[in-house]
Amino acid sequence: AAPLLHGYFRSSCSWRVRIAFALKGIDYDQVPVNLIKDGGQQLTDQYKELNPMQQVPAVTIDGVTLSQSLAIIQYIEETRPGPALLPADPQKRAKVRMICDLIASGIQPLQNLYVLQKIGEDKVSWAQHFIIRGFVALESLLKETAGKYCVGDEISMADICLAPQVYNAERFKVDVDQFPTIKRLNQTLLALEAFSTSHPSCQPDTPADLRA
Amino acid sequence: AAPLLHGYFRSSCSWRVRIAFALKGIDYDQVPVNLIKDGGQQLTDQYKELNPMQQVPAVTIDGVTLSQSLAIIQYIEETRPGPALLPADPQKRAKVRMICDLIASGIQPLQNLYVLQKIGEDKVSWAQHFIIRGFVALESLLKETAGKYCVGDEISMADICLAPQVYNAERFKVDVDQFPTIKRLNQTLLALEAFSTSHPSCQPDTPADLRA
Repeated sequence: AAPLLHGYFRSSCSWRVRIAFALKGIDYDQVPVNLIKDGGQQLTDQYKELNPMQQVPAVTIDGVTLSQSLAIIQYIEETRPGPALLPADPQKRAKVRMICDLIASGIQPLQNLYVLQKIGEDKVSWAQHFIIRGFVALESLLKETAGKYCVGDEISMADICLAPQVYNAERFKVDVDQFPTIKRLNQTLLALEAFSTSHPSCQPDTPADLRA
Repeated sequence: AAPLLHGYFRSSCSWRVRIAFALKGIDYDQVPVNLIKDGGQQLTDQYKELNPMQQVPAVTIDGVTLSQSLAIIQYIEETRPGPALLPADPQKRAKVRMICDLIASGIQPLQNLYVLQKIGEDKVSWAQHFIIRGFVALESLLKETAGKYCVGDEISMADICLAPQVYNAERFKVDVDQFPTIKRLNQTLLALEAFSTSHPSCQPDTPADLRA
């Protein structure tokens, strides 16, 4: 059976997984989990069986269901052929993972839906604060590591994390022009088919008014 | 030269790296970065060169300086001999990484110093909320994956993440008895030399009144 992605069009972590599948050329099926409708479909007992954190994504693959987007992507990397998502050189791998973790631990968790619901009415300025703080650090790292892509001239998991985080930044009206390396890399990535076909603007569950 | 760890005795992410060095039997030097003193030594321009996120840890190793604890630990895993910190089986590796990322993206970032400083006076209840929410999910995952350790009977990066997060839970007065699998695994881990010698209570920068 094809892998089954339980995700949400606008979730940056779901988009990471869609990019990885697209880069590897893997067909998959999608089950939309609407994070807003019905008070949040991720909160059902049924979904909790798939991901006890009650977040998207979850992926059913090879008879198991995995959650946490970077764990899912590394499983795909380790079990599927196709273009490598991590460089062969250990120091370059470490740089890719530093960038991934800066985004996945240092930025995204602080501006995701669940946290912002708890913050309440200051949520936009809260999200902007943590995204800008993270992007200042990320811009400084990327100035050292980037070539055509985040780490040198080969695409990697770092790029898979970057574009969805820039998408979130733009949703929260962060001026990405402040970060020229991030902006340039994001433009390069969005021009790739693996990023455009997996984009939040064209998923099965994208509402009509948000479609590209 | 021996690896150089820039860390703080009580930082859970610094402790993760100390455990990895201890499990691998790697000698290293420590440079304490006091997160409280002088308004936070991680905020100096000098430290920002080592970790642009201005957080601990950072590790200087093999001529480069790396940040993000899980990226550091995987670099150690991929370049050093000694006991494996990830299982050989891809599905088990994925389970280890799920647990690591649940902690490193789903819990720790929401209760770290920087966020709590921004939360202000509600910081203890904020931290408890996110730790308990994460532990509910983690307990449910670990019930499926655990043997003697977090994933089966071999120690892994998941265990390296677990014990420091339980230490944080206890600092914030979370009742860990609610989570019997987490509690049992943590007790097993704390009895190991790699966890006791690297514990926050016995580091070079541990203040006298917090020493074990």
